[in-house]
This record gives sequence, C-alpha cells and structure tokens, in this order.
Amino acid sequence: MELFGYWRTSATYRVRVALALKGLEAAERNVDIDKGENLGPDFLRLNPMGAIPALGVAGVAQPLTQSLAILEYLEETTPEPPLLPRDPLGRARVRSLALMLAADTHPLVVPRVRKYLTEKEGFDPARWKAWQVQWFTTGLLAFEQRLAADGEAGRFSHGDQVTLADICLASIPAVMQVFGVPVPDEAPTVKRIVAACNELPAFANADPYRQAGAPAKPA
Amino acid sequence: MELFGYWRTSATYRVRVALALKGLEAAERNVDIDKGENLGPDFLRLNPMGAIPALGVAGVAQPLTQSLAILEYLEETTPEPPLLPRDPLGRARVRSLALMLAADTHPLVVPRVRKYLTEKEGFDPARWKAWQVQWFTTGLLAFEQRLAADGEAGRFSHGDQVTLADICLASIPAVMQVFGVPVPDEAPTVKRIVAACNELPAFANADPYRQAGAPAKPA
Repeated sequence: MELFGYWRTSATYRVRVALALKGLEAAERNVDIDKGENLGPDFLRLNPMGAIPALGVAGVAQPLTQSLAILEYLEETTPEPPLLPRDPLGRARVRSLALMLAADTHPLVVPRVRKYLTEKEGFDPARWKAWQVQWFTTGLLAFEQRLAADGEAGRFSHGDQVTLADICLASIPAVMQVFGVPVPDEAPTVKRIVAACNELPAFANADPYRQAGAPAKPA
Repeated sequence: MELFGYWRTSATYRVRVALALKGLEAAERNVDIDKGENLGPDFLRLNPMGAIPALGVAGVAQPLTQSLAILEYLEETTPEPPLLPRDPLGRARVRSLALMLAADTHPLVVPRVRKYLTEKEGFDPARWKAWQVQWFTTGLLAFEQRLAADGEAGRFSHGDQVTLADICLASIPAVMQVFGVPVPDEAPTVKRIVAACNELPAFANADPYRQAGAPAKPA
C-alpha cells in the first residue's frame, strides 16, 4: 500500500497510527500541501477534494480517501487487533467520539479554510490563531465533558483498549503542537489518555516531527 | 426510540431518512436551536457538544450522537435494507463520499460557526452567505467530480441502491434550500441523484418543510 500524506496533518496521522497498530506496511508519499501540491492536477486526479490522506491499495484504480473511511476499511480487512468494540452501542459511542473531532472539529482548521479566511476575509495571524484555538478547544473540552459524563473511559477513551476514538483524539494534539496551540488544562482526561497513547510505538512513531520532510521539533 | 432534532438541520434529516428506510419508528423531539435550546443545561447533559441529532434508545442512559455514528448503528442493528455495500472497497467508497459532505462540508456552516463569525468577526448577512455558498459549493462540486472520475455511480451514488452516501448527499440540498443557496449547475449528477432520492417517500417525508415546527416552504 501507499499512503499519500504530509508530515504534519492530523488526518494523515490517524491513518499512520492505524496501519502501525494493525501491523501493516505502507510507503508514505509526501504531498506538500504548504506548496499546494494537493491542489495540483496530478493529485486532484487522485482525490478531487484535494485532501490528504489517500491510501493506494494494490489493484485498485483510485486510492481510498477520508481518514475515517480508511480506518473502517482497515478494520474490516485486518480485524486484529480490533479498533472498535464488539457491541453496537460501544461501536456507536466510539464512532461518535471519533466524529466529534474528525468531523466537528478538525475540518474547521484545515488549509483551505485558512486560505479563505486570510485571502477573502483578511485574517491576520492573530485572528487565524484565535480561530484555531476556538475550535481545537471547543472540540477537546466537549470530548472531555463527554468522557466525564458517561463514565466509560478507562486507560483509553472506551475502556482499556485502543479504539478509533483514541486515534482521532491523539491526532488533534499532534497537530496542535505544530501550530503552537496548547491542550487546555480543563481537559485532564484528554491529556491522560493522549499520554497513554503516546506510550505505544504506533502513536509515538506517527508524531509529525518524526516524519520525512518535517522541520526540527520546537524546544 | 426518540430522535432529538430540529426541523431544518441537515444531520437530523440524515437520521430521519435512515430510520424511515429501515422501517423504524422514532418520536421526534424538537430542540429549537434558533432559540439556543441545544445549549441549555438540559440538552447539554444529553450531549456536551450541544449538537443535534441525538437518538434515544430504550434502556440506554445517554442518547446516541453524531449522525454518521447513528447511521452505522442502525445499519448494524437493523441490517435490512442495507445502506452499505457488502464489499470492503465499496463500503470505503460510500463512507468516503458520506464524509466529504458530513465531515468536510457541513460542519463549516453550522450555527456555532455562524455565531463565531457574526459575533467575533462581525460578519454581516452577505459575508455569512458568501461563506455558506463557498463550502456548500466546494463540497458538492467535489462530490460531482468524484462521481465523474470513478464511474461507479448509477441511479444513486454507488450503483443503483441507496447508501449512506445518498443520505448525506441529499441532506445538503435539504438545508441549502432553507438558506436560499442553490445547488450549482455544474453538479448535474448530484442534481439527478438528489431527484432520484426525493422520489422515495423516506427522503420526501424527511424534507425540512414537512416537519413539525417548520415555517411554510418559500415559493
């Protein structure tokens, strides 16, 4: 398999982690979104949204797209270790947690939104930073409150096994560090679970600053 | 079951359609997001994101949240008629199409984003409308291009059976009509598939203007 991604993106991180947890190998192909390579004709033929990641699978004409769709595909085709619980209610909870961040949070802070707000609305770096802080913080505090409310978290977001919810959760601080946005102190459970994730090599090795093309990690 | 929703929201529409396609009954409870009821203490206890829809299931303490998680739950617990294809690659394609709209498009135009842009950034109605048009149009044109590129659409987005992709697709024009944003003419396949969906009672009856609490449909 081939993973078209970029060192610092949250959605690429999710696929990187899932591949590693499943013990699957994929060569990572760098698509430099800072240079607009994702919006060039070659990549748009692969993925009309111009979004990464995209997972190329042998014998399949078009790569798979959308990180959560890719994660579900990996879960269905390589069931062990499972990244979803067995029971439908547990699966619904894990998917809901994952979507709180992958759907309701992260799409607000991606490059095409920054481009619109800076070019069409004249956002300067401070206003863009305030926007980033607003949505990262809103998403993580809601996740924290959800975990506090239903009491189903354990070492990880859903009991003691890693699930898609943890992959999506850890993908947010992974990109926040790149943008210099701190995880709010009011999210202690989030911090604890992210730390537990980062003790696992699959997460630690997916860190943006460990990827090809990444700059040195800020001190 | 109980569906906590609101007449005009895209995500409530998705759950309404899926319940109808599966032949399931759920009493719909109106949460008036225009009056901020979703951000009141009662509803925040149900769903810390303050987002609707939420599906109450008998014997389960907290309602299920996030429309795509709810749709997957309904698919797992009531498999007929299927809303996902059988093969993993087909399922990945359908989920990816669904996420292009449910994750990459719709979260950008929800009330909490409007609130931020109007209150913190002083967006007037024209700037908010331009923002809505930008993301609805971007999402639908990408969906159109994706269908044109891979040749897997039939009467619906994935062959001739209704899937989660169609539910998410139809949910976008359903809310665009409320905001007076037209489906772009450059998306003829999208228009054709949405029309095919609306020939089915499950979709037609989910129309925002057919719900309790809705105003009269504009001429």
